[in-house]
Amino acid sequence: MRQFVFYNPTQIVFGEGKTSDIGRYLKGQKCLFLYGSTSIKQNGIYDKVIDSLKNHDVTFVEKSGVKPNPVLSFVHEAIDLARKEQVDCILAVGGGSVIDTAKAVAAGFYYRGDVWDFFVDKARITKALPIYVVLTLSATASEMNSGAVITNEATKQKFNIRSEGLFPKTSILDPTNTYTVPKKQAANGSVDAIVHLLEGYFTGKYPNTPIQDGFVETLVRTVIATTKKILENPTDYDARANFMWSATLAFNGLTTAGVGDYGFPNHMMGHSLSALYNVDHGASLSIVFPAWLKHNEPTLSDRLTRFGKEVFGKTGAKEAIAAMEEYFHAIGAPVRLSEVNIDKGEIKKIAENAVSLAKKWGLKNYTEDVIAKILEFAA
Amino acid sequence: MRQFVFYNPTQIVFGEGKTSDIGRYLKGQKCLFLYGSTSIKQNGIYDKVIDSLKNHDVTFVEKSGVKPNPVLSFVHEAIDLARKEQVDCILAVGGGSVIDTAKAVAAGFYYRGDVWDFFVDKARITKALPIYVVLTLSATASEMNSGAVITNEATKQKFNIRSEGLFPKTSILDPTNTYTVPKKQAANGSVDAIVHLLEGYFTGKYPNTPIQDGFVETLVRTVIATTKKILENPTDYDARANFMWSATLAFNGLTTAGVGDYGFPNHMMGHSLSALYNVDHGASLSIVFPAWLKHNEPTLSDRLTRFGKEVFGKTGAKEAIAAMEEYFHAIGAPVRLSEVNIDKGEIKKIAENAVSLAKKWGLKNYTEDVIAKILEFAA
Repeated sequence: MRQFVFYNPTQIVFGEGKTSDIGRYLKGQKCLFLYGSTSIKQNGIYDKVIDSLKNHDVTFVEKSGVKPNPVLSFVHEAIDLARKEQVDCILAVGGGSVIDTAKAVAAGFYYRGDVWDFFVDKARITKALPIYVVLTLSATASEMNSGAVITNEATKQKFNIRSEGLFPKTSILDPTNTYTVPKKQAANGSVDAIVHLLEGYFTGKYPNTPIQDGFVETLVRTVIATTKKILENPTDYDARANFMWSATLAFNGLTTAGVGDYGFPNHMMGHSLSALYNVDHGASLSIVFPAWLKHNEPTLSDRLTRFGKEVFGKTGAKEAIAAMEEYFHAIGAPVRLSEVNIDKGEIKKIAENAVSLAKKWGLKNYTEDVIAKILEFAA
Repeated sequence: MRQFVFYNPTQIVFGEGKTSDIGRYLKGQKCLFLYGSTSIKQNGIYDKVIDSLKNHDVTFVEKSGVKPNPVLSFVHEAIDLARKEQVDCILAVGGGSVIDTAKAVAAGFYYRGDVWDFFVDKARITKALPIYVVLTLSATASEMNSGAVITNEATKQKFNIRSEGLFPKTSILDPTNTYTVPKKQAANGSVDAIVHLLEGYFTGKYPNTPIQDGFVETLVRTVIATTKKILENPTDYDARANFMWSATLAFNGLTTAGVGDYGFPNHMMGHSLSALYNVDHGASLSIVFPAWLKHNEPTLSDRLTRFGKEVFGKTGAKEAIAAMEEYFHAIGAPVRLSEVNIDKGEIKKIAENAVSLAKKWGLKNYTEDVIAKILEFAA
């Protein structure tokens, strides 16, 4: 195993009905209450949160309107509001987009310059507001990690930040809050969790990692089995619960601790699809990941064979890739650029955009040419 | 999955050479430096720690002599010393016994009464000194949990405490620090890690827990495979590393989060063997656990069958138990009371002692009669 530092101080409060406890953790504070659309008003989560805040003497100011692939302009607005209202903390009620927005606001609150400086490594985050979460969509694991991804609309860059201060203090994971997640978003979340797990699994440089391998295979198997159940029966509690905890563990640092240097080449390429064409994050990954596997099949043959056997009960590397693609297809996730109306002629443009993130993330082998070659497999 | 709270803020710093970084985490503090025997002076760990402390301007007062099955009288002495020297924190260099002692001292430091009050639920821990760890023996996972077990020599009780403040701040896991662990202790650690994993696996009340099951099976497989390698080649880095991380993850809260009510019946009985006859903790468990499985085989048949298949590649519940016992035997761990010179005639006395812990831990079905019946399988 390679050397690593593992640190994750987020408290997870898991279970049906826990949403009504959120006020207890914020007691006596004034918070910026961030959320996305009106859906949390329709499904009752909004009322539960508000009641709990009031019951625990939490004061708050609301800001709604966070969109998928959350944008920098919204972060700026929210920072202004947080400062004007002098809040003590941020409460994010939503999925990855809302939590990531909360993290960017938390980091920007104390910083005199433009918060985007953190994303382009012009400045380091030294202080952040405390963040609390009520999760309503399982996918990104932002509820239990220290990272956030924001899109700068002006520069068409979808970039990330990471800092110890951005771990949420407490995240409430109430599986019933995900009962009303639409099938398309459930599928996106499933893809996201799987690709989070498999970026480390397939790019980790250290060979002897039985713990991490077993954990990843367990979680991928669980995500696949539970996604199918969720799409059939959206109120299957056990399926929602097992999916929720799997998605959180998929990207909280556990499965990559010790695997040595690893990269996020699929996220790198996927982010460009989102930045340029506003493709859903999950959909961007279901398109890119099978293409990446096909491109790398010759060097990943042994690993793919093991993966295919452990996760799909298949024999052979090519069969493992086919099974992965087939699964994405079966849950309604796109696996070709054409399925999200991106013409093959755009590949050069996508590669040009992606290469800037490849540089930022130290993915040295990913030149424009290599990225274009990979994307050809998704054409 | 059942509701749960997961919280584990210990920072793990893992890898060869990390021992020399310990001073960095204690910078500017005065610590009580606790350890066991002179073995850390022989294998060079002592010098590395001292050098690192000096390099980072850490002042310290030493106290050595922690014994396996650590005792209350030593805890009392160490609390007196810590108060007299007005230390800011505790540095534990050792295995579970040293870390558990550090936790008891950390908790007792601020308490006016006898620290044993915490163990018999007469008082609650509200404040504790910060704890730092350099691990030299993998077994108990005390380096990444909030519990500690101490034996009261006067009352012959081996009891435990648990409190959020007792999570170590930082634990250094340097696999090379375990190269000189004797075979008997390596075997004890292997048994301890396995039984930690399997208490939850076999007693958890909730049926649909694919994540936890997969994690436990992965870790048990890894512990078994690496123990065999370690006994053959004590300086096999990868084996030591994978064993070390497995043992930590075996009891840091991860594998039991969500499994519902579960118990520690084997630890309950094992603690009595240690309290009454000073049997090593690992050895007490390798004797008790197969007996407990045999007693419970009728009700655990399905679970045992799955376990046998996933971990040993065996078919059948009885075959799973046999494989477990065979493994303990193969690594030199005792599986019968007679192997640690305890006569069958002692069973009544052991059961009488164990039942007080059964009561404390809410193991209602474990009357003296039941405990005696289980122990008969180990006669």
